[in-house]
Amino acid sequence: MEKEEDVKVGANKFSERQPLGTEAQSDIKDYKEPPPAPLFEPGELKSWSFYRAGIAEFIATFLFLYITILTVMGVNRSTSKCSSVGIQGIAWSFGGMIFALVYCTAGISAVTFGLFLARKLSLTRAIFYIVMQCLGAICGAGVVKGFEGNARYELFNGGANFVNPGYTKGDGLGAEIVGTFVLVYTVFSATDAKRNARDSHVPILAPLPIGFAVFLVHLATIPITGTGINPARSLGAAIIFNRNLAWDDHWIFWVGPFIGAALAAVYHQIVIRAIPFKTRA
Amino acid sequence: MEKEEDVKVGANKFSERQPLGTEAQSDIKDYKEPPPAPLFEPGELKSWSFYRAGIAEFIATFLFLYITILTVMGVNRSTSKCSSVGIQGIAWSFGGMIFALVYCTAGISAVTFGLFLARKLSLTRAIFYIVMQCLGAICGAGVVKGFEGNARYELFNGGANFVNPGYTKGDGLGAEIVGTFVLVYTVFSATDAKRNARDSHVPILAPLPIGFAVFLVHLATIPITGTGINPARSLGAAIIFNRNLAWDDHWIFWVGPFIGAALAAVYHQIVIRAIPFKTRA
Amino acid sequence: MEKEEDVKVGANKFSERQPLGTEAQSDIKDYKEPPPAPLFEPGELKSWSFYRAGIAEFIATFLFLYITILTVMGVNRSTSKCSSVGIQGIAWSFGGMIFALVYCTAGISAVTFGLFLARKLSLTRAIFYIVMQCLGAICGAGVVKGFEGNARYELFNGGANFVNPGYTKGDGLGAEIVGTFVLVYTVFSATDAKRNARDSHVPILAPLPIGFAVFLVHLATIPITGTGINPARSLGAAIIFNRNLAWDDHWIFWVGPFIGAALAAVYHQIVIRAIPFKTRA
Amino acid sequence: MEKEEDVKVGANKFSERQPLGTEAQSDIKDYKEPPPAPLFEPGELKSWSFYRAGIAEFIATFLFLYITILTVMGVNRSTSKCSSVGIQGIAWSFGGMIFALVYCTAGISAVTFGLFLARKLSLTRAIFYIVMQCLGAICGAGVVKGFEGNARYELFNGGANFVNPGYTKGDGLGAEIVGTFVLVYTVFSATDAKRNARDSHVPILAPLPIGFAVFLVHLATIPITGTGINPARSLGAAIIFNRNLAWDDHWIFWVGPFIGAALAAVYHQIVIRAIPFKTRA
Repeated sequence: MEKEEDVKVGANKFSERQPLGTEAQSDIKDYKEPPPAPLFEPGELKSWSFYRAGIAEFIATFLFLYITILTVMGVNRSTSKCSSVGIQGIAWSFGGMIFALVYCTAGISAVTFGLFLARKLSLTRAIFYIVMQCLGAICGAGVVKGFEGNARYELFNGGANFVNPGYTKGDGLGAEIVGTFVLVYTVFSATDAKRNARDSHVPILAPLPIGFAVFLVHLATIPITGTGINPARSLGAAIIFNRNLAWDDHWIFWVGPFIGAALAAVYHQIVIRAIPFKTRA
Repeated sequence: MEKEEDVKVGANKFSERQPLGTEAQSDIKDYKEPPPAPLFEPGELKSWSFYRAGIAEFIATFLFLYITILTVMGVNRSTSKCSSVGIQGIAWSFGGMIFALVYCTAGISAVTFGLFLARKLSLTRAIFYIVMQCLGAICGAGVVKGFEGNARYELFNGGANFVNPGYTKGDGLGAEIVGTFVLVYTVFSATDAKRNARDSHVPILAPLPIGFAVFLVHLATIPITGTGINPARSLGAAIIFNRNLAWDDHWIFWVGPFIGAALAAVYHQIVIRAIPFKTRA
Repeated sequence: MEKEEDVKVGANKFSERQPLGTEAQSDIKDYKEPPPAPLFEPGELKSWSFYRAGIAEFIATFLFLYITILTVMGVNRSTSKCSSVGIQGIAWSFGGMIFALVYCTAGISAVTFGLFLARKLSLTRAIFYIVMQCLGAICGAGVVKGFEGNARYELFNGGANFVNPGYTKGDGLGAEIVGTFVLVYTVFSATDAKRNARDSHVPILAPLPIGFAVFLVHLATIPITGTGINPARSLGAAIIFNRNLAWDDHWIFWVGPFIGAALAAVYHQIVIRAIPFKTRA
Repeated sequence: MEKEEDVKVGANKFSERQPLGTEAQSDIKDYKEPPPAPLFEPGELKSWSFYRAGIAEFIATFLFLYITILTVMGVNRSTSKCSSVGIQGIAWSFGGMIFALVYCTAGISAVTFGLFLARKLSLTRAIFYIVMQCLGAICGAGVVKGFEGNARYELFNGGANFVNPGYTKGDGLGAEIVGTFVLVYTVFSATDAKRNARDSHVPILAPLPIGFAVFLVHLATIPITGTGINPARSLGAAIIFNRNLAWDDHWIFWVGPFIGAALAAVYHQIVIRAIPFKTRA
């Protein structure tokens, strides 16, 4: 879809390194790997774009928590569970918000971490984004608590993540690792510029499989942990809920997603990306 | 997808200023901002296209209310709530109709207002569109009442919007503001011509994230206000239902959406649109 | 997406007149209206393509009835209605099948009729397609009855269409007219070659809004008539079910869809298609 | 979307013969049928790409079983069936995973078999893929059993496929045949390179109709057999569950899918593919 002209005039599409948007659009035939992002980009802290991207991460995560936690509250409130949206509705809410927000910015800390591992974000930017995501998540969950009031907010444990009764902490950690693996693996596959160089139909739909991956992981693991796979979301809900129930297991929702994201980055780098190159040679 | 040829021969794609369709298609590389729409376009009132566009807004909003209110009625009518489509089904109905209708015209007054603020519609056209949307909404809700009969129609309060028991008017107003923010923010992101100039994959899917945004806001806020985020929809349902319950809170469904749309227009203009420009310079 | 080259070498993309596939792909800038299909195309009855297209209509409608009626049966059978797919699941089944089948052929008689009215199909082909659709529908419903056995098949009235208790025949007819209007209007909008000449993003997603339109009409009108909007589907279910209940109202599911399709064809021709032309002149 | 340039420089897009990804992208106008894959490709067993593709099949099927069987467990576990995701949620889980995974590799044995029949995969590769898919499926189901524990795992029969009470083995076999036919027919239609040569809008959405086909077949036939249409999925669940209930009917989930895939390959070759050629001549 990019015109060849665009390539010739030297528009450096990778200069910004904003992962989901920028990468997704390249279908240049003879693709050259962009240089890995430096750990610290000089001058980055002085550019407007740095802070604007941070604001965008904040707003996106704010809206994400607002919509999804409010949906969780609705399930709890209805007198008859049958008339509520149920687990399926909650899963749609999480997946759909990610789908809609990927158009702007992801707001998923685990994905930010995976992109840093793949050297597509500088360390400064990765940390700044994660901090802004956490702040956005806290505000989003806080607004929901404001609407619902204390009593109602606690009925469904404030949408916080913890390991449900009947599961061990190991089960919960495993569920977070595999769930984040599915998400980050989909993000890498759907936005991989090298792949795009081969088949251009993939990036067009990039937000759709990413949103669906989030939806499916929620369908599968809501009964185990409520599904984190996004440390900022878990932190925001835990801070506003603020009960031992949420804090006792909270490490799982940072360790699990980061291990899962790292595994997905390694798998993608070693197995998936290597395929097209070998087979064309 | 646009041929370069098309750009060269000077097809002025922005002359029509019909927001969702026209903007979405431009992926010209060196994009030039079209001039803001004048408040009053001379001769507009004499052109056939002006009235035809009004008719299209009328029909779109008519079909929107017809399908969605009828779906709401179905939930009420079924003896067992479990066999009904539930809140999730209602949310699909609203979101899906917007998805299907965005192909033609949006029929969402709050969006029309946001586009006027962004100077993409003349004042005349904005007012005319909103009037036609209101008329379409009244007719759509009226036909549903005709099918269902008075008794059945009132069981579920005619699909009218009001603040549910257990929430303050402030909660309802807040829910409408944030909900409309999510919608109008998605509309601007998905159809932004300046953004399209960068990554062409977005406009192709424009109707999908817009429809999803509507779906998600309904999932989240149906338990609070029934979800307005569209003054014409709220007015149509209120007029046909015509009970104090609907009229007492009716101002919320005009003030809330207009504040939310204005905030989204400001946020988009200042934070989001500025990003690509800074980063390319 | 079509290369200009393709246009120059004179590939007559409209010679086949197969509506959904062929039309959807043209994004030629200076679009010329293809001549209307003749009522009787000489030699058509001797061409292989004529019969192959008929077989494709048969198989498509067969699979459509098979999947959808089987889904309806599942709702009935489950001891607890809560664990079944419910009305929403049935609506997904109908909408999803249309989405998947539009890639090949529509298999919707009302759409075939609308395309004939718009002079995009010859009379011979329209009649042949509708006959093959009816045969496919009968076989599809028959296979479901074979799987389920007589007793189970009749519990949910065999998925046949009739006006539900509490509604008048006028309500049912109105629901079929408006429902088919929504469907055929979406088909025309999504596959309109003249529109494609303007904004190329629409045809790519054509099957999606069409499938969604079917989904939404089912969500809204299953409680009224079970939703026909496709005479072949209604006929197939009625013949296999074969009770007075289905036959008494059967005329509604032919008259309603044909009126709705005709109204949509007129509306599209007069209001929607005229817009771009006037505004560009 | 492919540049003409790409075609001229002789990039042999069919050399890899990986079906879903490679085929889907060609919209060359004068399409030439690639030669059929040899039964045994010399040197294939020594190439890295062969083993990497196998690993990808393993991981994809592992994730597929993990997510879907875990979702099935969730339905069983919830005290109130109404708050669970229900059959519709399970159908979304299966369909959605296929949608997300088609971006990488399908992991569906029946599809692998159909592609072998259509001579798009060598025999070696087809067998190797199916073996890896079975191993992945066993591991995926095993991890779910590890999370859930023996007692909970057996409540819902471990997600294994068998013919439900009230249906004959013939019904089950028929349901598997028609269900696989729907799936493989959609795969062939959506990724057919010859068709792509005509209308380029289809391949872009290829994963979507394929995922929807899986979703719909599950909606329709979960009450009959739990829906196999994928021998590796049935084998994995049966081995981990390991009860007579699952083994007695197990042959149905190999014979049915293979017959259905063969029928779809024949139908596609004879009826569907022939249409464009005849009509353009």
